[in-house]
Amino acid sequence: MGRVYLDYNATAPLRPEARAAMIAAMDLVGNPSSVHAEGRAAKGLIERARGQVAAAFGAEGADVIFTSGATEAAALACAGRGLHGAAVEHDAVKAWIDADLPVDPQGRVSVDDPARSVLQKANSETGIVQDLPEGLEVSDMTQAFGKLPVAFNWSGCRMALISAHKMGGPKGIGALVVRRGTDLEALIKGGGQEMGRRSGTENVIGIAGFGAAAEAAARDLAGGIWDRVAEFRKILENAIAAEANGTIFVGKDASRLPNTSCFITPGWKGETQVMTMDLAGFAISAGSACSSGKVRASGVLQAMGFSEDEAGSAIRVSLGPDTTQDDVTRFAEAWLKHWNKHCARTA
Amino acid sequence: MGRVYLDYNATAPLRPEARAAMIAAMDLVGNPSSVHAEGRAAKGLIERARGQVAAAFGAEGADVIFTSGATEAAALACAGRGLHGAAVEHDAVKAWIDADLPVDPQGRVSVDDPARSVLQKANSETGIVQDLPEGLEVSDMTQAFGKLPVAFNWSGCRMALISAHKMGGPKGIGALVVRRGTDLEALIKGGGQEMGRRSGTENVIGIAGFGAAAEAAARDLAGGIWDRVAEFRKILENAIAAEANGTIFVGKDASRLPNTSCFITPGWKGETQVMTMDLAGFAISAGSACSSGKVRASGVLQAMGFSEDEAGSAIRVSLGPDTTQDDVTRFAEAWLKHWNKHCARTA
Repeated sequence: MGRVYLDYNATAPLRPEARAAMIAAMDLVGNPSSVHAEGRAAKGLIERARGQVAAAFGAEGADVIFTSGATEAAALACAGRGLHGAAVEHDAVKAWIDADLPVDPQGRVSVDDPARSVLQKANSETGIVQDLPEGLEVSDMTQAFGKLPVAFNWSGCRMALISAHKMGGPKGIGALVVRRGTDLEALIKGGGQEMGRRSGTENVIGIAGFGAAAEAAARDLAGGIWDRVAEFRKILENAIAAEANGTIFVGKDASRLPNTSCFITPGWKGETQVMTMDLAGFAISAGSACSSGKVRASGVLQAMGFSEDEAGSAIRVSLGPDTTQDDVTRFAEAWLKHWNKHCARTA
Repeated sequence: MGRVYLDYNATAPLRPEARAAMIAAMDLVGNPSSVHAEGRAAKGLIERARGQVAAAFGAEGADVIFTSGATEAAALACAGRGLHGAAVEHDAVKAWIDADLPVDPQGRVSVDDPARSVLQKANSETGIVQDLPEGLEVSDMTQAFGKLPVAFNWSGCRMALISAHKMGGPKGIGALVVRRGTDLEALIKGGGQEMGRRSGTENVIGIAGFGAAAEAAARDLAGGIWDRVAEFRKILENAIAAEANGTIFVGKDASRLPNTSCFITPGWKGETQVMTMDLAGFAISAGSACSSGKVRASGVLQAMGFSEDEAGSAIRVSLGPDTTQDDVTRFAEAWLKHWNKHCARTA
């Protein structure tokens, strides 16, 4: 039996539509800034993809600034601005903010000054979804875009961060979406691309893939694919809860992304679980991918009030549009087998 | 007859080796920061490509920081550091420096304080090559890498900017190469990728393409392909000079890249030439690609002492490894035909 990939929140496999668009883009020779036919063709491809991303995200094309990913978008939106946020934000956001907003035990963040705050739409580790206050300055919509119906123009936010690879596009391309009229100091300057807001020859192939992935993700979302994914998650959680009854499912009573299950098995280290399940043929994670190489307990869970031991005993299982019921039942069986072994060892 | 692309300095067509490496990389599912098998495979691909780029550039893999291109690398190397440079630098460098170093009529730049200066190895518009002083802080090697034998470890520079798409890799990926022990403040922070010097999930597909392109470019360079290209340029320039004898070939007596011909036809606007030749089936440029959308005379040529009128009457023809003798003779014939028309109109 092949491997089972259940780490979609870390990165999603490339969608066939994105793959095809990228391969087609490889034949375009020109630099999008060049005025000759080859340059105009490359420019046209970028503008088509910009329209696809904007349509899927409920935004205007002119408001989409392509960046090398959500991490760069976070720096462009937040650096040097003294914004406030919570400790549950991604490290790419936390690097630039005062992480002093309170988080309740269900993972909900209280924002008192939206115009000077950052708030993620959905958390990468727990899947917990936030209500965004009107007038919010910046929202990290990286995990929400493609999995939830989010529309930038109706979100009440001034800026939003999005990323292609979380929705089946390629890694290394994302965008900052900004409300018209927002004054923005460029982080990367030079040739004046992206209307002067982000210079550098455009990642034409990556942008083509982002556009195609966004369009396909919007189609899947409208088609109800995530309802099926949520069903599979329920099957997974029920199977585990039925036997391993001390397991804590984080945010289970809160609003969550349909694909994410974060659960704590006190006393069984998350890293050990990840390695054990990897050897058994399953790709999952402990905490977010970026910091998963580092052996440290999740700051997200500790911000919600879990102890360091509890936070260190969490894993994240994140499903995708391609996940099957068989994938999750096989995972639950394998996990329970190793959980029983762990219990026998520590009994 | 098909179109003839003579704008390699703006961007080079994707090499087949890069294309194949990118398509292979599309099948890798994991996030390079994930510890499971899928993550490790993606990480392995990045490290293999890092080794390819380093080997081609005469550097150590650990010294290569992948960025979204040379423009981002310029910001990472130069922003907020008060470095000095000349007006012939690329806009991506000029955005961050005091452009006060003198340029002589042959395009040579005088550097008095290397440790506080930036100097390009080769100019994108004219192809003019600089001797780099020992102890230089930053060099833009974007145009030189792949066309000239440059080796970072023997260059005497602390940092160098390089880009994949100028050598047949994809757009949107490049690197800052830094001498060991250099203290560098990250511009983009978060997950701690690239040893904390540049965060953000890596552009795995783009990096794979960069590695393959660098390896192929190094092989072509060692095989003497640019000697042939330089021959074709000579044929081109001789054909034009024989008839259009008022034409000024910029930097012809200086050391130049083997592929670049920048020439001034006083009174015949560069933009007009670009559009005329585009309609005739040839892709060339007036000035650098980044600013070619803007109608303004080249700052590079004015820094060398050419008048605004002369600078506004320049075009750049840049050849590549795939350029044939037929391409350049056809170009020369077509250009001379239109030059004769221009002369008849203005006589």
